[in-house]
Amino acid sequence: MEIGFLGLGIMGKAMSINLLHHGFKVTVWNRTLSKCDELVEHGATVGETPAAVVKKCKYTIAMLSDPSAALSVVFDKDGVLEQINGKGYIDMSTIDAQTSIKISDAIKAKGGDFLEAPVSGGKTHAEDGQLVIIAAGHKALYEEALPAFDVLGKKSFFLGAVGDGAKMKLAVNAVMGSMMNAFSEGLRLVERSGLNPGTLLDVLDHGAMSNGLFKSKGPTMLKNSYNPGFPLKHMQKDMRLALALGDENAVPMPVAAVANEAFEKAKSTGLGDLDFSAVIKTLN
Amino acid sequence: MEIGFLGLGIMGKAMSINLLHHGFKVTVWNRTLSKCDELVEHGATVGETPAAVVKKCKYTIAMLSDPSAALSVVFDKDGVLEQINGKGYIDMSTIDAQTSIKISDAIKAKGGDFLEAPVSGGKTHAEDGQLVIIAAGHKALYEEALPAFDVLGKKSFFLGAVGDGAKMKLAVNAVMGSMMNAFSEGLRLVERSGLNPGTLLDVLDHGAMSNGLFKSKGPTMLKNSYNPGFPLKHMQKDMRLALALGDENAVPMPVAAVANEAFEKAKSTGLGDLDFSAVIKTLN
Amino acid sequence: MEIGFLGLGIMGKAMSINLLHHGFKVTVWNRTLSKCDELVEHGATVGETPAAVVKKCKYTIAMLSDPSAALSVVFDKDGVLEQINGKGYIDMSTIDAQTSIKISDAIKAKGGDFLEAPVSGGKTHAEDGQLVIIAAGHKALYEEALPAFDVLGKKSFFLGAVGDGAKMKLAVNAVMGSMMNAFSEGLRLVERSGLNPGTLLDVLDHGAMSNGLFKSKGPTMLKNSYNPGFPLKHMQKDMRLALALGDENAVPMPVAAVANEAFEKAKSTGLGDLDFSAVIKTLN
Amino acid sequence: MEIGFLGLGIMGKAMSINLLHHGFKVTVWNRTLSKCDELVEHGATVGETPAAVVKKCKYTIAMLSDPSAALSVVFDKDGVLEQINGKGYIDMSTIDAQTSIKISDAIKAKGGDFLEAPVSGGKTHAEDGQLVIIAAGHKALYEEALPAFDVLGKKSFFLGAVGDGAKMKLAVNAVMGSMMNAFSEGLRLVERSGLNPGTLLDVLDHGAMSNGLFKSKGPTMLKNSYNPGFPLKHMQKDMRLALALGDENAVPMPVAAVANEAFEKAKSTGLGDLDFSAVIKTLN
Repeated sequence: MEIGFLGLGIMGKAMSINLLHHGFKVTVWNRTLSKCDELVEHGATVGETPAAVVKKCKYTIAMLSDPSAALSVVFDKDGVLEQINGKGYIDMSTIDAQTSIKISDAIKAKGGDFLEAPVSGGKTHAEDGQLVIIAAGHKALYEEALPAFDVLGKKSFFLGAVGDGAKMKLAVNAVMGSMMNAFSEGLRLVERSGLNPGTLLDVLDHGAMSNGLFKSKGPTMLKNSYNPGFPLKHMQKDMRLALALGDENAVPMPVAAVANEAFEKAKSTGLGDLDFSAVIKTLN
Repeated sequence: MEIGFLGLGIMGKAMSINLLHHGFKVTVWNRTLSKCDELVEHGATVGETPAAVVKKCKYTIAMLSDPSAALSVVFDKDGVLEQINGKGYIDMSTIDAQTSIKISDAIKAKGGDFLEAPVSGGKTHAEDGQLVIIAAGHKALYEEALPAFDVLGKKSFFLGAVGDGAKMKLAVNAVMGSMMNAFSEGLRLVERSGLNPGTLLDVLDHGAMSNGLFKSKGPTMLKNSYNPGFPLKHMQKDMRLALALGDENAVPMPVAAVANEAFEKAKSTGLGDLDFSAVIKTLN
Repeated sequence: MEIGFLGLGIMGKAMSINLLHHGFKVTVWNRTLSKCDELVEHGATVGETPAAVVKKCKYTIAMLSDPSAALSVVFDKDGVLEQINGKGYIDMSTIDAQTSIKISDAIKAKGGDFLEAPVSGGKTHAEDGQLVIIAAGHKALYEEALPAFDVLGKKSFFLGAVGDGAKMKLAVNAVMGSMMNAFSEGLRLVERSGLNPGTLLDVLDHGAMSNGLFKSKGPTMLKNSYNPGFPLKHMQKDMRLALALGDENAVPMPVAAVANEAFEKAKSTGLGDLDFSAVIKTLN
Repeated sequence: MEIGFLGLGIMGKAMSINLLHHGFKVTVWNRTLSKCDELVEHGATVGETPAAVVKKCKYTIAMLSDPSAALSVVFDKDGVLEQINGKGYIDMSTIDAQTSIKISDAIKAKGGDFLEAPVSGGKTHAEDGQLVIIAAGHKALYEEALPAFDVLGKKSFFLGAVGDGAKMKLAVNAVMGSMMNAFSEGLRLVERSGLNPGTLLDVLDHGAMSNGLFKSKGPTMLKNSYNPGFPLKHMQKDMRLALALGDENAVPMPVAAVANEAFEKAKSTGLGDLDFSAVIKTLN
């Protein structure tokens, strides 16, 4: 079966290569078409436009950088909408619930099926097929896409109505942003108290709080290395959206609010393009 | 070899039983002596006073409720100091660095050896021998005690000078207190946004943040059950001590400070004796 | 000279009566027209629609409850736009910069002049002509309106381009919201330390921090009385908008963020319609 | 009548000169005796030791830098205690309740009377006799000192038991520290939104929030000038003590906690000796 794939950034490239390596036939498209060349080497076919990809495939996956790119691929000339009648469209980008619902409504009005499916995990998880997929929308399309999801991720969730996936993803990232600040403060406390912060990593790693985030970020933070796995400015944006969701639903979130301000502070001192673990530098 | 054990509270009882089951000969003492009866059934001998226990054993472990109890057992009449010459004393209670140093100085002045060895982990870890032991002080005594530590914990650390273990423990608990607040806010956000908070537990458990704390506390929090594994008022006290340590060393800790105020708020509304996960109730 | 006045809520009513008492001829309109009766007793004329008021007057002032009401009065059928050619329109409502700019653009496109002029101060200031007016937009219209502003307020500012008045107002309210939280915490601290909180009011009132906000709100807070001068839910909304403005401009605002969460907490426990000083109840 | 005065720092010097100018006979002492010379020019007599001053005067005022200096002057050799029998001692230093009670107990045990009388206000208030005096302890001594207090301050309060004055002072400073952060965030928000922060000062000064703190600090903050009226490190210490008092009494103080961390951050970047308004630099 032919799958369409729109968007070959860091995440999209890794995901579409995974699909190809697992025997899927994939037709790819990227705004800068030359980025498709590497995929062709892995066996992909290239579509000239989003509409062309959609027309050719049973369903099409999109992995785009932000809400504006997600909207553009759907609504612009030669966009997804033009050929979506009778097809499926799966947006795995991280976008807010409102944007996701807007895309869903337009696609349904044209006779297509829509699934939102944001992921938890970064570049290395994408490469290793270890993403967590948080889907919502058209249930039958979800089931149709499960073979692909099984290749892309280690676990898929189906939540219900479009928008619920986006909300769940924001909650996950809010927890992650606050945890990173908690971790940063602990590391600085140990360091400034004259102890070895590497020992804190070890102690944490042997206790109930042991987790992959601390394990992967701790050693690089100690080396003052902030190569972006997940850029700080995106983390800040997600925390802002999570706080806005909290505001809508009258949920007090004081710790997330303060964590957000730490990311804000980091951004205002030029750290926005580094990894989000660079928030520790606000504690200097 | 005979080991002394002072203090048979929730933690001390589980730890001394573990030692007995692994073939150690243990002489126990507790302020309320009747609490020793159950230990006798497991094979323990009873000492009449801390001094009597210390006199009889090569080294003695203490697991007491707070700094004041830790001081009392050492300095009072019939206390540890009276027989410590030539012996070892290991305090595994959670106490601040100043108290630990005060005890250490007195014991060394009387010709004894001292090791502080606070633990990370609660009642179930104590029962299962899965504590993490954070030791500092007399290195030879640490090595002598390793066979016992191997029974009590899954991992032991030796950090250096007396006081360092206490500081490391505070940093660990500061991270834990902030993480619990981050987790609580995420759960409330999901719930009030009309999603299933159980799904957040699932999603978190499959991603990089998966950890034993969320796994053990999440399900009970969803049931609104706060049976104290680690009482909230103790968590708040530890966060306060961690913030004080930060203050001494000029470490800004805004997230921990806000988390501490949430525990403070919880305490002021009568939740101090519940499990520290009851902090989620401040988000009602 | 004839002045138009749209919106006779708590603020608008007090302001238009003030204008009438100072000899201005005022034509009023309110969505619920019966509310105009009291104004007629004070000498006002009634206009049937916003368009009718604008047509009759040299310039028209609006004082509406929120952005949506502000937009409706301008853009709806029989709205301001229909007759604005050659006239002036002054919106004194509290609205965000984006909404203000949208109204401004439409009015200018139709040949009218626009001034935004949000105010600092509540009901009693409106009644006493003691508002602070923060204007921006069409300079000549500002000067034309100065005689009216001199009646309505004790001080007027002209800031420049449309949107700047709205932004300045948000900054003022962010300071106010944080100050109210600081004040609340001080009162609770004194009270729970066994001292008389009334003495704190006295001490503050004799020092450098003495200000009208503490003087007017302190005594009612001590009586647990929260009759809404400025509803808490509006304060929370303004803090959220101020934080969003900070986010746009990369300004870390940790104290305002935490103060906002306290208002959020108050709202979530049903205090939204009380005065914003009711935020002290989150410290119970 | 002869008054003793111990401590001729910035505050003590201004206060004792005031007393001399208003006709009081004053015997002064300072640890560095040469600092007494200027006071002699104003008509003071010099005492060789605290004990010598106390012996000569009906009552003695102390204005010392911190708890340790306050204790030393009383308990050291040739200290206050040696001659306090039948005399009065008034400590106007800013010290915590525990220290104040310790001094009080010792003085009463020796047959002396004690009054704590911390002040609100800085150097300029001291020079102008505009301090606010927050007294507690021996009521008759308070009344005896009122003529002097009337010269030193514009208003005196008598609160009750020793310790209550210290606590009230901490609450006042907690409000002040949070207000300064609220003010700083407002100024930065306005500035980064492209508006003139001087206009915010003007707007605030015409509204309900107008106060002497903003009026005196605003203009110097805009000039980036932080000549210490009240050093930041002392402000941070007072906030910490206020939070500790809140902790004792289970008062949640999230805004003060975050404000304290901002001062902490400022201290950790070397701003501790500047005026406390330099906390705005943490928002860069």
